[in-house]
Amino acid sequence: MDKIKVGIINVTGYAGVELARLLHQHPEVELASVTGRSAAGQSLSEVFPHLAGIDLTIKTKLGDVGLVFSAMPHKESAVEIIPLLEKGIKVVDISADFRLKDGSEYQRWYGFSHPAPQLLAQAVYGLPELHRAKIASAQLVANPGCYPTGAILALAPAVKAKLVVPDIIVDSKSGVSGAGRTLSLTTHYSEANEDVSAYALEGHRHLPEITQELKLLNPELPPAVTFVPHLIPMTRGILTTAYAPLASGKKGIEEIRKLYLDFYKDEPFVRVADSPPHTKQTWGSNLCLVYPTVDQRTGKLVVISAIDNLVKGAAGQAIQNMNLMLGLPEETGLEAPAIYP
Amino acid sequence: MDKIKVGIINVTGYAGVELARLLHQHPEVELASVTGRSAAGQSLSEVFPHLAGIDLTIKTKLGDVGLVFSAMPHKESAVEIIPLLEKGIKVVDISADFRLKDGSEYQRWYGFSHPAPQLLAQAVYGLPELHRAKIASAQLVANPGCYPTGAILALAPAVKAKLVVPDIIVDSKSGVSGAGRTLSLTTHYSEANEDVSAYALEGHRHLPEITQELKLLNPELPPAVTFVPHLIPMTRGILTTAYAPLASGKKGIEEIRKLYLDFYKDEPFVRVADSPPHTKQTWGSNLCLVYPTVDQRTGKLVVISAIDNLVKGAAGQAIQNMNLMLGLPEETGLEAPAIYP
Amino acid sequence: MDKIKVGIINVTGYAGVELARLLHQHPEVELASVTGRSAAGQSLSEVFPHLAGIDLTIKTKLGDVGLVFSAMPHKESAVEIIPLLEKGIKVVDISADFRLKDGSEYQRWYGFSHPAPQLLAQAVYGLPELHRAKIASAQLVANPGCYPTGAILALAPAVKAKLVVPDIIVDSKSGVSGAGRTLSLTTHYSEANEDVSAYALEGHRHLPEITQELKLLNPELPPAVTFVPHLIPMTRGILTTAYAPLASGKKGIEEIRKLYLDFYKDEPFVRVADSPPHTKQTWGSNLCLVYPTVDQRTGKLVVISAIDNLVKGAAGQAIQNMNLMLGLPEETGLEAPAIYP
Amino acid sequence: MDKIKVGIINVTGYAGVELARLLHQHPEVELASVTGRSAAGQSLSEVFPHLAGIDLTIKTKLGDVGLVFSAMPHKESAVEIIPLLEKGIKVVDISADFRLKDGSEYQRWYGFSHPAPQLLAQAVYGLPELHRAKIASAQLVANPGCYPTGAILALAPAVKAKLVVPDIIVDSKSGVSGAGRTLSLTTHYSEANEDVSAYALEGHRHLPEITQELKLLNPELPPAVTFVPHLIPMTRGILTTAYAPLASGKKGIEEIRKLYLDFYKDEPFVRVADSPPHTKQTWGSNLCLVYPTVDQRTGKLVVISAIDNLVKGAAGQAIQNMNLMLGLPEETGLEAPAIYP
Repeated sequence: MDKIKVGIINVTGYAGVELARLLHQHPEVELASVTGRSAAGQSLSEVFPHLAGIDLTIKTKLGDVGLVFSAMPHKESAVEIIPLLEKGIKVVDISADFRLKDGSEYQRWYGFSHPAPQLLAQAVYGLPELHRAKIASAQLVANPGCYPTGAILALAPAVKAKLVVPDIIVDSKSGVSGAGRTLSLTTHYSEANEDVSAYALEGHRHLPEITQELKLLNPELPPAVTFVPHLIPMTRGILTTAYAPLASGKKGIEEIRKLYLDFYKDEPFVRVADSPPHTKQTWGSNLCLVYPTVDQRTGKLVVISAIDNLVKGAAGQAIQNMNLMLGLPEETGLEAPAIYP
Repeated sequence: MDKIKVGIINVTGYAGVELARLLHQHPEVELASVTGRSAAGQSLSEVFPHLAGIDLTIKTKLGDVGLVFSAMPHKESAVEIIPLLEKGIKVVDISADFRLKDGSEYQRWYGFSHPAPQLLAQAVYGLPELHRAKIASAQLVANPGCYPTGAILALAPAVKAKLVVPDIIVDSKSGVSGAGRTLSLTTHYSEANEDVSAYALEGHRHLPEITQELKLLNPELPPAVTFVPHLIPMTRGILTTAYAPLASGKKGIEEIRKLYLDFYKDEPFVRVADSPPHTKQTWGSNLCLVYPTVDQRTGKLVVISAIDNLVKGAAGQAIQNMNLMLGLPEETGLEAPAIYP
Repeated sequence: MDKIKVGIINVTGYAGVELARLLHQHPEVELASVTGRSAAGQSLSEVFPHLAGIDLTIKTKLGDVGLVFSAMPHKESAVEIIPLLEKGIKVVDISADFRLKDGSEYQRWYGFSHPAPQLLAQAVYGLPELHRAKIASAQLVANPGCYPTGAILALAPAVKAKLVVPDIIVDSKSGVSGAGRTLSLTTHYSEANEDVSAYALEGHRHLPEITQELKLLNPELPPAVTFVPHLIPMTRGILTTAYAPLASGKKGIEEIRKLYLDFYKDEPFVRVADSPPHTKQTWGSNLCLVYPTVDQRTGKLVVISAIDNLVKGAAGQAIQNMNLMLGLPEETGLEAPAIYP
Repeated sequence: MDKIKVGIINVTGYAGVELARLLHQHPEVELASVTGRSAAGQSLSEVFPHLAGIDLTIKTKLGDVGLVFSAMPHKESAVEIIPLLEKGIKVVDISADFRLKDGSEYQRWYGFSHPAPQLLAQAVYGLPELHRAKIASAQLVANPGCYPTGAILALAPAVKAKLVVPDIIVDSKSGVSGAGRTLSLTTHYSEANEDVSAYALEGHRHLPEITQELKLLNPELPPAVTFVPHLIPMTRGILTTAYAPLASGKKGIEEIRKLYLDFYKDEPFVRVADSPPHTKQTWGSNLCLVYPTVDQRTGKLVVISAIDNLVKGAAGQAIQNMNLMLGLPEETGLEAPAIYP
């Protein structure tokens, strides 16, 4: 049987090129077309020598494919996607353009008026651990942000079980590749190396995603989330430390671990870790490690999660979504363990 | 006038060798004697080539000096210090052995029975911003831990002013030098590089210091502190992000900034920053940068602090304490700006 | 058909654990047994959480397998291997114990008397690009050192074609994982980070391998090689810069590139690069990138090569050798592109 | 007595801001004026928070000062400097514009026609170890490039003593700050981190400086130098490994060390190291460490040098030159030891 042809819009960012790497190894689909404005006309391997095995030219227009990944920046992504949807093509959008259900949030957080708010209801938030069935039948999947992936997977079991008062602190530490391939002083080597800083203290764009999804898990108790992201001198990885007060009368640590183990027992890409996880343990893989514990002195649930921001936080999760949309086994093409050290 | 002679017990750890570097440049004291078990008999510059300008041999016993810094590990430090105190020598203890007022805490947190609990009342906790006057007249100063320095300076103005409900999260990110010069798999380059992890989730030894000092600032409202330290792939620096609910009816961000500016207005080594601080901005210097802000959505105070863990978090603060104890201007020998980039 | 069972002696070092990662993904063999002294009795995934997908216990003795990788330290490796050879088991030795043909070199470079010098003639130096046919029929393959792999592949075409006077400088830059998982001050994070240094200036143990193999390529003109390795603050990768005077009357850069392209035209794991290679372009892959050029001012050939020291420089090459020894396609299990960025 | 006022043209690059840091601590001069196009109108501490102790506004035009440092890019620097020289102001030029004695080299290496070739003879190459007396009486000093500083200091004693055949390989490893503060993909964190590469293989602009100065040391035997710079994942530091064949009949390693020790015996900022130097041992200091040795197998002299590229390789050396030009003790303001670890 012929492989299903897939394409990538804007392959030249870090999420796009990571998609290309992973799709190249995927046994059931064929990466048939890639676009990119800056490098159009060049071969993919010229721009990205590590992909020398892939024989594709970067074009300005996508060829004929059955499923498209859009790795465009927000706002521009929607513009590219809408005509594809009209043609019946399946789409996984890596951008934020279809993640939020409330269209007015786009003005507030992204500063633009959404061009197709009617599509927001139809789009499925592509976190398979929460929305697997809907993803399987969706035409448009909004791939979660990197921070929300780590934060929601850390908190979902506790919030759903009403284990915590939803007064939540999410403190995340991200490698620099999360800021993308576009140049900036913040991501200039000599500035980012040997440095740690917090940013987006006035409110990060990933916050409404986190609250939207946690609210769905416990609609009666809408969560208050304080989210502070930090930039860490490493290339890949997000470690998230989430804090929330345990609801009164609540549980010991063994019960909580059991709750997490049950919640994720059938998940191929979430593992409840036996010891505090390291981002290095997920390097290059689609795994999310989750470690719940309790500060007995203060009655706080503390949950740590670790992901590779470019894999489970972007390209890998996009392929996990594609597998579901195409009826393929969810792990296909994503089985490689992390590379250590 | 002759310079005052000072000595360092256990110069061969990172705090000890950083003390030697800073004391070498100090215009009013002379580093006259250094000890170290592992390297005894070798010249200081043989073990630490960057200190080639210092002509000292590492001995097993301290020479005749007027003030001693102990950079011994905890438990062993007290043993070295007690006879010095009996001889009337002034001591700055970099270890934890005299930081806690309640002697029983040593059994709980450090696993040993304190050899001289009667000295705990006499020892002064060496955070000059809180205990300047007492330090000036003390014979024994307990130099604060690196994490407590960043955490307490971040929170002191808010806790003292009862600005917050003392239900506090302290999430700290430390460079690897904080773990010392003793070898371990955790600090092996290939393990620590390109990795972030949380540790000491069952309770870090620096927690009782933080709570002790915050409680002194607001004795009616003893704080509940959840403290989670993280290891970051860089050599120096601690960034602390502290979270606490604002007390009801409380203040806007400008008022809070003013409160912090007032609290630290005469402090030579604390600066209330205009933007979220970077640890790089303190690299090699004795400065602590503090940045208070508010998450308006959730009513949380968020304060970021940045220090160099080996300077304001150890050796620099020890010299600041020494200056106070010897009646010297507090900044002496500590004026060098951070090295950037 | 049943998969061929293979085993790893001493899985707990970086080469051993990388072998486990790669073998786990290999479609034609089954990693059936692993040993390790320090961690015996523990499950592999307990010691190495990134290998949670592999269900194996670390034993003290190897089970029944058809081919063994030894990742023991030198001298001890030979002791383990000799009885296996007597039983007819195929062996790939990652250690240096069978790399040198002249047994007396072991006393000189490694300080021990070789326990089975008669086996040295039978062992094949496992650089497939030079000894493919012999490897295919060998019982014992000596996997090359990481530095020799990069250096020999950089120089082989030029030395074989007598393009250069064999008065060679090899200046190599290695990531820290090359120094292994055993703790040392040199590989302590705070010492190795933000630092570069040269080492082994009195002569590195990999030098006799390099000269042995280059001499085989041009026996009339035994090469004089000055080899200086450097430690670089990164985890993986070796960049080698090799310099040699062009033989008189010799060639332009295009001719030289053509010679290299011809030499490596059928090699699955050597690519003659179009621009100076980056170690990052080989991260996690079995590729060696080679870039020959000429300093026209001085008549020197300059060749740069880049490898991942743990893959093409150790575990990946070992599997490439295994594939040849077992009659499998050489690329099997090694097709994954490098991970970037 | 009033301090001498000095100014910096283009303070906003890494060399400029490092000059500001060092001049701020200089006891004999006052940093009175700084310019910068991009940040004109802002206070220095706004752009560079680590310099909060300096109260200066970045201007577009320099104020009234007695000595000027130009940290402008090449070509533009000459344009700024020429009018200053006409006014009798002393100048230390950090750019390359007055380093080369042969004006035609500027067309060849820098692609512009020198605007004032008549000044090239008058300008003094500011390597104090070679040209101290001339620097002391110069109006215009051309501060050496970072690579030439390390390379020339590594080779000068050997070349001057005709110890080597001047067929020289210079293999240098530089931290990323050497590439400046201007953004580029090469210096983007995620590209430069965990990577090593060679660059400028067609010829680096610092090569003519190296050959010019080595030729002056031994005019009968003009050197042939192959120079290959490499980019290393760290912020500061250059390690240079230089190779040259020993002249026949030449010397043992002890004799060579003695020759180096004699050559540098009165130098405050060059130390002949007892063991292979680490760039970390020079971090933040004006020191150059030099380590000569011999590869006995091949008869090659191998010399390693280590500097901090922004201090001895730029701003520190500029101040060393200024001290000489102003008749101040050469070490003034430059005594701080390196910061380790």
